[in-house]
Amino acid sequence: MRFTSEAWYDGVREQLFSLGEIPGALWTPAGAVRTRPVIFIGHGGGEHKLGPGVVDRARRFVAEGGFAVVAVDVLGHGDRPRDEDFDRLATEEQARVETGQESAQLFADFRTLVARRTVVEWQAVLDAVQQLEHVGAGPVGYWGLSLGCGLGVPFVAADPRVRATVLGLCGDLASPEDAARITVPVEFLVQWNDERVPRDQGLALFDALGSAEKALHANPGKHGEVPAYELDSALRFFSRHLN
Amino acid sequence: MRFTSEAWYDGVREQLFSLGEIPGALWTPAGAVRTRPVIFIGHGGGEHKLGPGVVDRARRFVAEGGFAVVAVDVLGHGDRPRDEDFDRLATEEQARVETGQESAQLFADFRTLVARRTVVEWQAVLDAVQQLEHVGAGPVGYWGLSLGCGLGVPFVAADPRVRATVLGLCGDLASPEDAARITVPVEFLVQWNDERVPRDQGLALFDALGSAEKALHANPGKHGEVPAYELDSALRFFSRHLN
Repeated sequence: MRFTSEAWYDGVREQLFSLGEIPGALWTPAGAVRTRPVIFIGHGGGEHKLGPGVVDRARRFVAEGGFAVVAVDVLGHGDRPRDEDFDRLATEEQARVETGQESAQLFADFRTLVARRTVVEWQAVLDAVQQLEHVGAGPVGYWGLSLGCGLGVPFVAADPRVRATVLGLCGDLASPEDAARITVPVEFLVQWNDERVPRDQGLALFDALGSAEKALHANPGKHGEVPAYELDSALRFFSRHLN
Repeated sequence: MRFTSEAWYDGVREQLFSLGEIPGALWTPAGAVRTRPVIFIGHGGGEHKLGPGVVDRARRFVAEGGFAVVAVDVLGHGDRPRDEDFDRLATEEQARVETGQESAQLFADFRTLVARRTVVEWQAVLDAVQQLEHVGAGPVGYWGLSLGCGLGVPFVAADPRVRATVLGLCGDLASPEDAARITVPVEFLVQWNDERVPRDQGLALFDALGSAEKALHANPGKHGEVPAYELDSALRFFSRHLN
């Protein structure tokens, strides 16, 4: 793990790093020394580790919840080196979207390609950040919508360090068995007028989650219009389950 | 409006009253003098104004939110005088439940009988409590699940003083036009394994609400198993919209 830059904003320390070919960002409270819970943020499709939504969430989780937060670029996104398999699939899928085929299928195919690699990568990132003195090996939360949900479902199912997760804007049931293997508390977001994920698919994924404690939060609006109060809710949810 | 008893518990003043034939309860912060928002609680079927759930919610709304809270016995419930129409319908409906017919239909029929009267009664109760010096004419919130939702939908649709409402556990669409007339913020609860209200009916009622801001909160469990954290959420929701 190699740190490449460091900055402070309003009491939040931001460190950029790379782990092998994976570029990432870590946010912690300035001056942090003791072990604290980590929230892993999975960014959306076409976004990256420093997208404005990711950074906004990360700073609030750190400043208001005292968490450490980590995000990395998913294969084919942000500062990742180009990947031939990814480029080929992305080109094929863009062609499908242009011919009007369902974008939910795009997520399913994309996930098939990257999910296995992503789980391995994210587990390695967690291993590395939890060895840092200002993070430590505390409980882990996962936050991911849209692509971050599609990749998050197999990750949360696979990693027992994750104790609570916010997922949503995702209806891909290519791996309903992964959803069924999730048993930690979940807050699951659905946009009632989502133009990309059919409502029934989102509800079906919520239904498939194996967790005894799972809360569906549905709000009116399109895919990109999750109301701001859901971030307040996520912060309380993680505080309740990770502290 | 005639007050019949008064008590204090942990900083909360509880006054029982009757308005004509309607028995009610009013909770306010001890020592309250200024105008404050009122939350009207509609109790569930078979319950009454002093049911443990009603009292628990009322005390928290007062103690933690500074609200005034009022609840009254619905026709045929609690300390209400017997009513021939109600008794006849209740007997008929009990027979239907015993023969295995859908209980959602029970709520629909019940509502047809009492909704019109209830709206008039509740508006009169609001008129009366808002004339009290320790309540005043502030904004109003409405909280009602199950029967309290079935009666609350026409009430919230009819009374412009109501600025925010928590509804749910209810799928009766006998009056979808009432739901469509609701335009204030709504938090709407669905129990994912509700044995009394079919899931699709709850989702359809949420869909029919005319509000631009409406949030569906669905949790696993049966009709009576709404998780405790939804009361925390309701308290924050009312604080956000009524203060």
